[in-house]
Parts: sequence; C-alpha cells; structure tokens
Amino acid sequence: MKKLSSSAIAHPNIALIKYWGNKNQALRIPVNGSISFNLDSLFTKTEVTFISELTSDILFINGHETTGLGLDRVVSFLNIVREQAGTQSFAKVNSENNFPVGTGIASSASAFAALSLAASNAIGLDLSEKELSCLARRGSGSASRSIPEGFVEWFPGVMDTDSYAVSIAPARHWGLVDLVAVVTHEHKKVGSTAGHELANTSPLQKARVDDTKRRLDIVREAIKYHDFQAMAEMVELDSNMMHAVMMTSRPVLMYWENTSISIMKNVQKWRASGIPVCYTMDAGPNVHVITTKDYSEDIYQKLACMNGIKQIFIAAVGGKARLVND
Amino acid sequence: MKKLSSSAIAHPNIALIKYWGNKNQALRIPVNGSISFNLDSLFTKTEVTFISELTSDILFINGHETTGLGLDRVVSFLNIVREQAGTQSFAKVNSENNFPVGTGIASSASAFAALSLAASNAIGLDLSEKELSCLARRGSGSASRSIPEGFVEWFPGVMDTDSYAVSIAPARHWGLVDLVAVVTHEHKKVGSTAGHELANTSPLQKARVDDTKRRLDIVREAIKYHDFQAMAEMVELDSNMMHAVMMTSRPVLMYWENTSISIMKNVQKWRASGIPVCYTMDAGPNVHVITTKDYSEDIYQKLACMNGIKQIFIAAVGGKARLVND
Repeated sequence: MKKLSSSAIAHPNIALIKYWGNKNQALRIPVNGSISFNLDSLFTKTEVTFISELTSDILFINGHETTGLGLDRVVSFLNIVREQAGTQSFAKVNSENNFPVGTGIASSASAFAALSLAASNAIGLDLSEKELSCLARRGSGSASRSIPEGFVEWFPGVMDTDSYAVSIAPARHWGLVDLVAVVTHEHKKVGSTAGHELANTSPLQKARVDDTKRRLDIVREAIKYHDFQAMAEMVELDSNMMHAVMMTSRPVLMYWENTSISIMKNVQKWRASGIPVCYTMDAGPNVHVITTKDYSEDIYQKLACMNGIKQIFIAAVGGKARLVND
Repeated sequence: MKKLSSSAIAHPNIALIKYWGNKNQALRIPVNGSISFNLDSLFTKTEVTFISELTSDILFINGHETTGLGLDRVVSFLNIVREQAGTQSFAKVNSENNFPVGTGIASSASAFAALSLAASNAIGLDLSEKELSCLARRGSGSASRSIPEGFVEWFPGVMDTDSYAVSIAPARHWGLVDLVAVVTHEHKKVGSTAGHELANTSPLQKARVDDTKRRLDIVREAIKYHDFQAMAEMVELDSNMMHAVMMTSRPVLMYWENTSISIMKNVQKWRASGIPVCYTMDAGPNVHVITTKDYSEDIYQKLACMNGIKQIFIAAVGGKARLVND
C-alpha cells in the first residue's frame, strides 16, 4: 500500500479591510482587495494522506468523521489538487482546530490554508507561496491570506493565477493583539460562501467596493508606520461598511447580537479615553478587539467584566502556514 | 396692549422611508423624498401670542422658560414668519409635548408643525397646506410631514417653494399602529440637524440616495394596497440603509443600543411566524414597531416581556396639524 502523507499548520486571520463579494464565485476571485493579520495562538492542524487503496476521500474534523456538505467541499478542493498533480489517488484528511468553528473566527481560512499546504506537499507538488495562496483561495477566499506570514494583503486580481496574498510585514513588525470576544457558540445561520453571493443584492455594495482602494491605502500605511489611531478609524469604518452591506442584503444578514453592540460601544469609549483599541467583526456575532501588547491585559480585564461574553481568545500576530512533523 | 394669539396641535410622524441629508442645509431641502404617517396619540400643543410690548421672543417648553439654542432656533423661525407677514412684533411661545423629547420620537417635527400653524395664524397669514408644509420645513425638515393628514409624502423639490409634503392617504385608509419601544430616556448626543450635515461624509450616502425612488415607489404602492409584507421589507431595508450611512459617517453616528438590536431581531422572528410587524428606527435608540390594530395588543405584550424597554408608546395613524381653541 502506497501512502503519501504530510501535515501542516495554518492560522486563521482577522481582516482589517474585509473581503465581501466575488467577481467570480466559482474561482472565489473577490471584488476588492483585503488586508489581515494571522492569529498565532489559534490554528488548524491538518494531516493529508493519499492512499492508493481508498475508493473515496474521507474527512475527520476534530476526530469525528465528517460527511455531507463539509466533505463535499473538501473533495472538490482535492479534485483541484489532483488535477494539478495529474493523479487520481484519494486521501484521508484529518483536521483539528483548537478553536470553535462557525462563529466568526474564520475556521475555513486556516482549514483550507493547512489543507492546501499538506495536500500539495503530500501529492508531490512543489508550489511557491503565491501558488499556494491561489490554491488555498479555491477552498475558501480568506484562506489565501492564511498562507503568508504576519500582516498580509490579498490582491484581488482577475483570474485564478493572479488572485493571491502576500506578506506586507512580518509578524514581529508590530505587536498587535486580537482579543476575540465570543458572544455565542451557535453556528451561524448563513455561512460566508453563501453570504458572498448575496453581496450584490445590497444597494450599498458597489459604493463599498468603489471606496476600497482608499481604505486599503490608509491601513497599509498605518501598519507600516505603526499608526494605531489611523488604523483604528479605518478598521472600524470598514467593518461597519461590510455589515452595512450585509444588513441591507436580501435576505438580510444581521450578524450583530446585542452584546456585539455593547462591546463595540465600549471599545469606542476606551479608545476615546486614550487606549489604542479598535473593533472589527467578521460574518458572525463575535467581536475582534484589537489592541497592542502593552494594553492587552487591561482590555482583557475590561472585556471579562462585561455581561454576555462567553469566552475570550487572545492571539498575537502569527506566522505563515507551515509543514510540521507529527 | 395688542395681542394676537393662536393655538395649534400637531403630531410627530414616523418615517417609513427616511429623510437623511440635505442638498440645501439652510433651507432644509432634502436630498431624497420620504414617506411617513402621523402618530395620533402623541402631540405637541403650541400657543403663540404676538404681543406688541415684548422686546424679544420668549419660549416656554412644558412650562419651563427656555433660552439658549432652543430659543435661538425658534427666534430664527419666527423671523421667517415675521418676514412673510411684514411685521416686527415679538411673540410668547408656549409649547407642550405629551411625550419625551430628544430620544428618536421626532419632537421637533410636531413642535415646528404646530408652531408654523399657530404662529402664521396668529400673525394673520392665511397659508395653504402646501405653504404651511414649506414653512414648517424651515424649522425642522420632518415637520413638513406633520402638516398634512394621515399617510404623507414629502417631495424633495429644489427650492424653498417646491419642497413640501402632501397626504397620500387619510388616517382611516389603513389601521396601522406604531408601538414606540423606548430604550433610553437620555438625550441623544448628536441631534438630527447636526446629523444631516454628516450624511455626505459616509461613502454609502450617495448609493442610499440613488436607490430612493425604488423604495418610495414600493412603499407608496404597499400603502395604497395595504400590502404589509411588501411594506415591511422595504421599511426595514430603508431604516437599515439610513443607519448604515450613520455608522459609516465621520464622526460615526451609532444610534443603536444593545436592546435596539434585540427588538429588531425579535420583530423579524415575529414576522417570520406570520404576524404583520416590522421595525424602523430614527436618529435615536428607540425602536418603532409597526403592526396592525388587530395585532397591536399581542405585540405590546411581547415587547412588555422584553428586558431593557423602559416604556412603550402606542399610536395609530394620526390627523393633520390643526388649530385648537384653548
């Protein structure tokens, strides 16, 4: 029995300028560029083993065999890898997250980044970082941003081979911390893939997209010069703009819960008092509260005193997707 | 001593399609049309007495003499009335609301509608409804909509004389009820007049305005044919679109409180269960929950069971601004 096995780790990322809406849904080519940083303490570890005797792909997530839509999405992705490698072999995929899925921490980003690296390596492809980012994008758009190191920008591109992410600064460049305030552990009702398809039903999406270059430029410069205040205002604006599109889509996507509002309002008060802190929310009710290492304990204590927060994850800026030995 | 006195009553109104942003700030000529209905149980009653011996205007609100910005705004308005009448006499204004001011129930709408009618009548002007609506608009944009009867549309126009509101259906046309869920009695930090000036700082305002004709057409038709479902979706979309603009303005205007979110989410659940109910929010944290007479008691009970609601006002569709005898 021939076995080709590799394991990889990748981190989720938090977008400072958001990805919402595709110009090519099948290839997940986004309508606008985005900027994120990886979250070091959170990760997906994925082992991929191509086994010649298998008659189909099999998937285990956190130790449980997974079928249905979750498996279908992985099979579709592995078909792309097999096509690139010119082989037919099926795989056993064993994926583990150290954080809950489906609640606004982008588990699909780290999952498909780790899967891209492990699967391509196991099957014998030797992909560049750019090619890996393109590949990861096919599984989940934001997974393209979990391939490179630290602070990352995803260039939208126009085709499969030019829509990828690059590192714009290493993790050590700026000591930011993301405190993820978990408001609910419920699975979100509308996932990101379905959500992206609704973006154009909002009368506000075009205006959001048309204004993206300005926001990207400001956040890219703010990262370069460690300008927290400039970053904070733009990150919150960008988050509000994405949720503005969501809540004016048809059907309406309202990811905010009442506790989300309380956290956002408190973050604005804390920043007004002089603390470098800002919020951003992905397609879920959890609030990412971004601050610097110097203030992370203070902000943690402040969040811990609030009602309605179930759990707080803390992550500094993380590294790139990488192969690991089991 | 020569005294010329009149009293008038006007109702606040709740906008189904919102007014947000002016093309002429001084004349309060709005960038888009709007549709509202008057709220019968809430009212401002204003007595205006022009007294030849007075050396300045004096203002009493709910029995208390008011100076500062509140008085300045009334004086500026009375100057317009005096100019139209060609007289110099100052006035004593006595205004009473039966509802709290500054929390998202448009007290300035009923106040300036009642003041327009009382002041113009006391000073001897005989204004048509159109002229009264234009005059009321000068004091507060949405006051133009509190002049006509029942369901009202404000045509934006381009100059002082063609920006006014008309009745599109009498109050008896459709038995809607507005349950105003009061979330806080705090005065809002940024009032509507200042807020309108910020509308253009949002990258989303132009898209909101450009899409207005579509929303007006749908809501006007929905009123005509008593089509609650069509109205509900568009009213909630329009409210979300205005708040999307507010929360992406600079500075950010975030009027939503955590209880506001809970109410909006519950309203959507109730409608999904088959009840004709929808929400809309003005420039404040209170939520207007609109339903029909048949369901108003049911919705009242549901709201009364929720945490965080301080008070609930109930209003059916109200009549026009009218003169009253003391």
